[in-house]
Amino acid sequence: MQKQPLILITNDDGLDAQGINVLAQCMLNLGQVVVVAPDGARSGAACAITPLVPVTLKLEREKQNLLVYSCSGTPVDCVKLAYEKVVPRIPDLLVSGINHGDNASISLHYSGTVGAVIEGCMKGIPSIGYSLRTRSQTCDFRPYSGVVEDVASYVLKNGLPEGVFLNVNFPEVPVLKGVSVCRMARGIWQSEWKDTDTPGTYLLTGSFTNLEPETEGTDYWALDHDMASVTPLTLDMTDYSSFDMLKSLQK
Amino acid sequence: MQKQPLILITNDDGLDAQGINVLAQCMLNLGQVVVVAPDGARSGAACAITPLVPVTLKLEREKQNLLVYSCSGTPVDCVKLAYEKVVPRIPDLLVSGINHGDNASISLHYSGTVGAVIEGCMKGIPSIGYSLRTRSQTCDFRPYSGVVEDVASYVLKNGLPEGVFLNVNFPEVPVLKGVSVCRMARGIWQSEWKDTDTPGTYLLTGSFTNLEPETEGTDYWALDHDMASVTPLTLDMTDYSSFDMLKSLQK
Repeated sequence: MQKQPLILITNDDGLDAQGINVLAQCMLNLGQVVVVAPDGARSGAACAITPLVPVTLKLEREKQNLLVYSCSGTPVDCVKLAYEKVVPRIPDLLVSGINHGDNASISLHYSGTVGAVIEGCMKGIPSIGYSLRTRSQTCDFRPYSGVVEDVASYVLKNGLPEGVFLNVNFPEVPVLKGVSVCRMARGIWQSEWKDTDTPGTYLLTGSFTNLEPETEGTDYWALDHDMASVTPLTLDMTDYSSFDMLKSLQK
Repeated sequence: MQKQPLILITNDDGLDAQGINVLAQCMLNLGQVVVVAPDGARSGAACAITPLVPVTLKLEREKQNLLVYSCSGTPVDCVKLAYEKVVPRIPDLLVSGINHGDNASISLHYSGTVGAVIEGCMKGIPSIGYSLRTRSQTCDFRPYSGVVEDVASYVLKNGLPEGVFLNVNFPEVPVLKGVSVCRMARGIWQSEWKDTDTPGTYLLTGSFTNLEPETEGTDYWALDHDMASVTPLTLDMTDYSSFDMLKSLQK
């Protein structure tokens, strides 16, 4: 009998979020599941780690094919702890999400969901992040479970190139119109601070503008046209095209 | 008379760190300086933001050509606040650091120093991060000030392509042997958790291994050979080379 795939799951909305529970249900169709997720919301945690302060890992429940741990740290801490202290071997797949709120365009840089995926990729685990463009904490995830499983199955079967991971985003629609393999859109966050009652103290907010709304082939374009976006991303952020321009700095 | 360049400075080691004060001294040779930095250490903050909790901005001191603010948030919050609440116009340059500890290879993904630079780049500001490979909180920064100013002057004069920023790292040496324009090395962090006295509770630590120590043209190679590394990085993490492999996911 072939060994079942071992699938590690985490997120940044915390263990009790609806999205991670939907994701665990999807993954149980594909293999043996270990969940290690933050004990509360860690939205906007990016790739943050917890230095100097001890991090706690706690077994919450254990069922056939499903182990669930909570962690007091960040999403990246969850992956690091799972890798070294929980899983019996290198997982065949890491999935993160399903995030409440999209992580398309530059917003992925702030995302704890994507941060966990970056960490999985650093550890050599084929890794996928899933996010849903919604402002709601309770939503109907059923329109997306087919694509969630399709992309995960594809990666379990084919793997991903070294240093490459996937960022999948869904629009909030009753029926997806398709799946687009596409790049990050160029975008900008603006008007980011709201005054509070205390002078000199501000609350982070802001609105996102897609700088190329008419351009097909971007993640935002796919979402705006009711399609799921699948964006391959790379750990290597080097901009090779600038080497020539910068050569006068070389000494 | 030509207007002086406006230079925004931040870091992740906090306002009182030696590195940011050295950096401010260097930048005062080049223009008018505004410092907005965390009120304490934010190492490992990456691109984290502070949602839901108010963030405080406080004017600490004001001298000719130098304004200094502290901020209760992350390095990215500092840049966002500076941009919207402090500077009279878009700065001509953002510099972050000088970090105590290098941010080469994949370590840059965890770095608050680099996180601030990513944010500067998102805002359209030519942005540079500086880090020093040292474990000390007090060190001799004099060997690096020439290159710090050279790179900043170059960027003030030539700008950087849209969506591109620079990550500069220094080895801890009395005299630099050169400056290398180079890519991120492939590397891995291992043995990352130390047991504490409380079962199930761990302290983050770990050791980094460069996976290609003999390869010239990487940031780690430069540092290992007593050279400064200058690595151009891009906001666009899309891995274009995987599109073809993934096309069967398109629907």
